Amino acid sequence: MKNANLIRMFADIVGTEQVLTSAAAMSAHLTDWRGRYRGAAICVVRPRTTAAVAAVVRACAQAGVPMVPQGGNTSLCGAATPDAGGRAVVVSLSRMNRLRAIDPANNTMTAEAGCVLQTLQEAAAEAGRLLPLSLAAEGSCQIGGNLSTNAGGVQVLRYGNARELTLGLEVVLPSGEIWDGLRGLRKDNTGYDLKHLFIGAEGTLGIITAAVLKLFPLPLAVATAWLAIESPAVAVRLLGELQARFGPALTACELVSDVALGLVRRHIPGAHPAVSASPWHLLIEICGGGNDGALRDELGLLLAESLDCGSIKDAVLAHSGEQAKRLWALRENIGEAQKIEGLSIKHDVSLPISRLPEFVERADRALATAFPEIRIVTFGHLGDGNLHYNQSTSAAGENAAFLAAQPKVNRIVHDLVHELSGSISAEHGIGQLKREELLRYKSPVEIEMMRAIKRVLDPQGLMNPGKVL
Amino acid sequence: MKNANLIRMFADIVGTEQVLTSAAAMSAHLTDWRGRYRGAAICVVRPRTTAAVAAVVRACAQAGVPMVPQGGNTSLCGAATPDAGGRAVVVSLSRMNRLRAIDPANNTMTAEAGCVLQTLQEAAAEAGRLLPLSLAAEGSCQIGGNLSTNAGGVQVLRYGNARELTLGLEVVLPSGEIWDGLRGLRKDNTGYDLKHLFIGAEGTLGIITAAVLKLFPLPLAVATAWLAIESPAVAVRLLGELQARFGPALTACELVSDVALGLVRRHIPGAHPAVSASPWHLLIEICGGGNDGALRDELGLLLAESLDCGSIKDAVLAHSGEQAKRLWALRENIGEAQKIEGLSIKHDVSLPISRLPEFVERADRALATAFPEIRIVTFGHLGDGNLHYNQSTSAAGENAAFLAAQPKVNRIVHDLVHELSGSISAEHGIGQLKREELLRYKSPVEIEMMRAIKRVLDPQGLMNPGKVL
Repeated sequence: MKNANLIRMFADIVGTEQVLTSAAAMSAHLTDWRGRYRGAAICVVRPRTTAAVAAVVRACAQAGVPMVPQGGNTSLCGAATPDAGGRAVVVSLSRMNRLRAIDPANNTMTAEAGCVLQTLQEAAAEAGRLLPLSLAAEGSCQIGGNLSTNAGGVQVLRYGNARELTLGLEVVLPSGEIWDGLRGLRKDNTGYDLKHLFIGAEGTLGIITAAVLKLFPLPLAVATAWLAIESPAVAVRLLGELQARFGPALTACELVSDVALGLVRRHIPGAHPAVSASPWHLLIEICGGGNDGALRDELGLLLAESLDCGSIKDAVLAHSGEQAKRLWALRENIGEAQKIEGLSIKHDVSLPISRLPEFVERADRALATAFPEIRIVTFGHLGDGNLHYNQSTSAAGENAAFLAAQPKVNRIVHDLVHELSGSISAEHGIGQLKREELLRYKSPVEIEMMRAIKRVLDPQGLMNPGKVL
Repeated sequence: MKNANLIRMFADIVGTEQVLTSAAAMSAHLTDWRGRYRGAAICVVRPRTTAAVAAVVRACAQAGVPMVPQGGNTSLCGAATPDAGGRAVVVSLSRMNRLRAIDPANNTMTAEAGCVLQTLQEAAAEAGRLLPLSLAAEGSCQIGGNLSTNAGGVQVLRYGNARELTLGLEVVLPSGEIWDGLRGLRKDNTGYDLKHLFIGAEGTLGIITAAVLKLFPLPLAVATAWLAIESPAVAVRLLGELQARFGPALTACELVSDVALGLVRRHIPGAHPAVSASPWHLLIEICGGGNDGALRDELGLLLAESLDCGSIKDAVLAHSGEQAKRLWALRENIGEAQKIEGLSIKHDVSLPISRLPEFVERADRALATAFPEIRIVTFGHLGDGNLHYNQSTSAAGENAAFLAAQPKVNRIVHDLVHELSGSISAEHGIGQLKREELLRYKSPVEIEMMRAIKRVLDPQGLMNPGKVL
């Protein structure tokens, strides 16, 4: 009865056809992208304006009904789907997909939460600008979700996370009030910087409805290279040399283990570029002024030196955009290749870059001791100290059984991350997946501060319950 | 009696000689740098460790006594000095000046709040790294204060504000608990990003005792030029062209009006470099790889084009570090020259860069209409949309009388800033100076969120009362 009233109120706000109640219509909204969580909901409501989101939130707040904000539903931690209780309403932001403004002279765009990331990248490019946020899900993830999880991706080294790309926010608060913080300013020291509370809060403090994002000039020249190297320690040293030489022009520095590369060769069809066999590999990209040829020559010079002194074993320098794409495909297809190979236990960790080699060495050794049959797939954004560090058995068919070892594997990996002052979630967030782990590794002081802020902004505890905290 | 007890407790914590109670000893701590505010205090206490700060805060919290955290006491808004009531304790962080760690491979340093900014810059340089935070007060301001006001300065265009340079914080909370958030990670998505609450909070939510700061490679090459231009509109266009050509290598783009330059020529002795007379000027700096000569040639090429097409009227390209320094002195001495000229009404505003020319034109016109004798000194960080926009009368001797017009001048300037979606405090903060202005321009929703966060973290309202909120 209460639910029927709520559904009627939603229909008044957004129109009957934008309130989904049948199992079939709701289905895609109730399961996460990885298929790990299956939830239930009173309905899925699809507002198209900030005012409509506010009205929906007010109705829920009055009825004491929990809300789960949802964008492209590509969370890797189950942050965007409801639990199985069926007491919540899913608030889908997909229809809030207007690009409100683009200001090339200010290097900003103002976009609504439901804009698909790739659409925004394209709109920026049309205006002669770069929106540098870029990640595997960019064809379907939405900017509101990107901001709510503080998304990372492949260009963080140069441009920062989603957080660093955000100048202003519009948020519907748990009370249903609208906070208009849509400022497009590089400097604004007027009080507490509230936007940073909502960025990365995974929808637990309010619903982001729009944002002002930083844009950049399009790079004039690009140089891409694949390096065969001996170890993560060599990779860290090379990173330092590349940064000293190229500064912020170094836009990507991606580490790939030989095991990870092997999965791509095995499972992803197509002609793979010839790169030398080696225990480790590094994919680097430099973006600068001038032209491709000059930049390539400059990078080539440094690589020749590194070959001479033996710090790299081999290097492939892309001589065209097409070649660069094929090198990138070796890196970008690792996730897909892993999926084909079978289930695995995944970690998204970060470390002080100086301690990353020690982490890999010690974690590999501890896991191999505990699980002699283990196979470790290591790759990630070396320049950000961010590793994707995944485990399965070497026999693909036995992976399902191996998954039972997840708690023990997590403990080995996360305890070591913690010991080395790292993070158990570098870019994927907490969601449902890592809520217990968070309690294990955060100090009580920090957890209590988070809870206090949650209580004061969302006293009824209705915003995305069961996530993060 | 209560005060005597408190002073005894402090003496037990930090030693008698580190509790200042005499008027003479406290004097420097009770007046702000600009000499605008004169306060009173129970005492000044100077802890040397985080544990001692925590003990001091606990004692104050138990006694219900307000605290004013103080670093180098260089606030331009009266944020670091107590009010005249004399009920507060000044907590000076000056003795907490240990550089705890420097990690070149991770590009980070961990510094205590009382470290003088210049000392940290020098320590970074010794390790072959750049700490890019740089501002006029760097010889005496302390990093804790820099973070508490989210300091800006001359390299924000490339490196961001103090906020963007901070990876982790250690904070003594108003309860006296210590929050250890000293992480040195580029990516960490484990819950709410609490550090951003304390950065820019001007000591109203807790006392920052240490921070992990980002470092960068030292730039290999620098090119500096002074351009004579027609208008701020031309400056904005040139900024776009420079960014398109040089990307992040453009580290500074400073606007100077002819009036501002004239003050330097008049009041600052020394041989000034010959730059053409022009209504407006632009000081630009490019930092890149390669060597000075090559970078200078590249910049020279662009300047030659701009001269040819008439977008700049004249250009001086520095041919040595010494010449560059002399060009920078023209910009950096504006504040000092203004001080010598006499009192003025100052504004530190920011705007979307695209609207900055409109602001200057409309504000200049409105002020000239209201005050026919007015003289406007305009300069600032164009690349950040940040203008220092100061007013006096053309007859220096009459400036004191003109100061009475401050409310009316503020209203004209800040109303227009607000209309153009700008900020009334770009980099100096709110302190005591702009508290009323803040209430005027912030939405009630935002003010209430700030107050709610203040209440939950500092329920007794003891941290730096009367500042910001």
